[in-house]
Amino acid sequence: MRREAVSRVRQQAQLATLALVVAATAPAQTDPLPSWNDGPAKTAILTFVRETTTPGGATFVRPEARVVTFDQDGTLWVEHPVYTQVMYILDRVPDVVAKKPELKDVEPFKTVLSGDHAAIAKLTMPDLEKIAAATLAGMTVDQFYAEVKKWLATAKHPRWMRPYTELVYQPMLEALRYLRANGYKTFIVTGGGQDFVRVYADQVYGVPPEQVVGTAGETKFSYDKHGRPILTKEAKVMLDDNNAGKPEGIHLVIGRQPFAAFGNSTGDRQMLEYTGTGSGRRLMMLVLHDDAQREYAYGPAEGLPDSKVGTFTQQLYDEAEANGWFVISMKRDWKRIFPFDP
Amino acid sequence: MRREAVSRVRQQAQLATLALVVAATAPAQTDPLPSWNDGPAKTAILTFVRETTTPGGATFVRPEARVVTFDQDGTLWVEHPVYTQVMYILDRVPDVVAKKPELKDVEPFKTVLSGDHAAIAKLTMPDLEKIAAATLAGMTVDQFYAEVKKWLATAKHPRWMRPYTELVYQPMLEALRYLRANGYKTFIVTGGGQDFVRVYADQVYGVPPEQVVGTAGETKFSYDKHGRPILTKEAKVMLDDNNAGKPEGIHLVIGRQPFAAFGNSTGDRQMLEYTGTGSGRRLMMLVLHDDAQREYAYGPAEGLPDSKVGTFTQQLYDEAEANGWFVISMKRDWKRIFPFDP
Repeated sequence: MRREAVSRVRQQAQLATLALVVAATAPAQTDPLPSWNDGPAKTAILTFVRETTTPGGATFVRPEARVVTFDQDGTLWVEHPVYTQVMYILDRVPDVVAKKPELKDVEPFKTVLSGDHAAIAKLTMPDLEKIAAATLAGMTVDQFYAEVKKWLATAKHPRWMRPYTELVYQPMLEALRYLRANGYKTFIVTGGGQDFVRVYADQVYGVPPEQVVGTAGETKFSYDKHGRPILTKEAKVMLDDNNAGKPEGIHLVIGRQPFAAFGNSTGDRQMLEYTGTGSGRRLMMLVLHDDAQREYAYGPAEGLPDSKVGTFTQQLYDEAEANGWFVISMKRDWKRIFPFDP
Repeated sequence: MRREAVSRVRQQAQLATLALVVAATAPAQTDPLPSWNDGPAKTAILTFVRETTTPGGATFVRPEARVVTFDQDGTLWVEHPVYTQVMYILDRVPDVVAKKPELKDVEPFKTVLSGDHAAIAKLTMPDLEKIAAATLAGMTVDQFYAEVKKWLATAKHPRWMRPYTELVYQPMLEALRYLRANGYKTFIVTGGGQDFVRVYADQVYGVPPEQVVGTAGETKFSYDKHGRPILTKEAKVMLDDNNAGKPEGIHLVIGRQPFAAFGNSTGDRQMLEYTGTGSGRRLMMLVLHDDAQREYAYGPAEGLPDSKVGTFTQQLYDEAEANGWFVISMKRDWKRIFPFDP
């Protein structure tokens, strides 16, 4: 850790101590963030909520304006070894090829069907997008929702052998609930598919479909052979909700800057920058995966292993330091990782 | 009126009578829709709310799923003689030409600058879109919001000589409030500009920016010369929120079918059809402008004068009859039109 970083951590520790002193003099109440260890990250969330919801305060935010955004993959749930939606897409390939046998000998479908794990792991984003487009184009929105729901009910994460929807971070569920209890509307702003995440976001995170912003393809309104209106998914991407696409997607769907934004990778950088330009009190936080034992460790920031999935560069870490964003260390800041942890 | 229409009106009158009998036996309470005359339209709204919010009922809708959509122009506020946003765009032309003098001799800018009302009235939608693109491209989102706010504060409707934001329909304001009081999330789904409507929707209709779906252009995230993140409006249309674009826009931003939809023109047809395909109890309503004395009269449905703005065809009227959609007659169903009416 470089000198400025050390000094910043010291400052944060002092703030944390101050908050504990303040808390000790206040009447006893239930801890809204019980899975967070005491420290700068937990204090930052508590302080942000207090300062933006105390009537008459200089940084009070009227309830109607309280908007916060959360990235999903790696911020709310596990994204390693690969994004959950990629697992879904790969699992769909045999079905797609059964309907369009001509794809059998075409890349990247051929590689997926080969079952060669090493080759599959090397598929690029454009490869995966090509597969995604083939797996959903022509489906009605309702068929897609039903298909994802069915898959989620049976698919299991290879490490924990549990449904993906159980691999959500308990501390973040508490943050979502705590913010909502204080009048904040919680939005997911994900690089993942908007319709994919909508299927389970309400049940898993308490976030309704209209509060999920994600990568979105076009849909086409038409009539089926019985003259009944249908909406069909098209292969064309309308919003690529990554990097600069995140603030653009926030503007498209939400129309105003969030007061707080949570992310974990370089794909969230612009969302946090955009949130930070707002006036008054704003909170920007990044989850650092530095706990190989309980979850995963990857960066490459802070000497952690490099990763293609959920890359957290040293440049992003430095920008966080420079801008007063808080880095959440999974290892240090989280008492529990998953709801099923003891 | 044709035979089926007469029989439908008779049915609606019977339902209305039944509702009045039911209402008479219930404890006295304040009328939530005081600007509506008793009749099938008012009864339809009251019945819909009762049937979807009574716990244990067969058509009960859980509070988290309660979504309703309202068109804006001609449904929530006046759209004649021309759409308010068109007035805004025309008023912006001198400013735009001052910054880009080369446009002075180029159509359609030349016509707008001529002040020739007859020629201006003949501008086509593509002409207006060309002007709109020129007036907003390159502005930051914040500049655009500020510009529209400034214009709305001084611009006045030529007939009533009042700000456009006062020319909203009191009965619809009551319907919005009544639905919200019963747990419904109210969305605007407008062919107008999403960012334009967002400027005043919260204050005028109680609809926050994230519940406004409208025609939307792309935005571009970048940094200004001080390195500060900015969002700039681009000339490219991303969502044309008219006709089939309405259900497509509803899917993009809301992600599920509304339980009720209100419109007034052929541009709302697909939104109402889409709403009607949902299971359980749904409510579809269309405002018919048949009151030249208090507002305007146009169709051409039911022998009303034809209109380029807010066209309500006989075909749409017949589809409404056939599908059990309710037509709201301004003349017959609305006791008051505007909040400032005595």
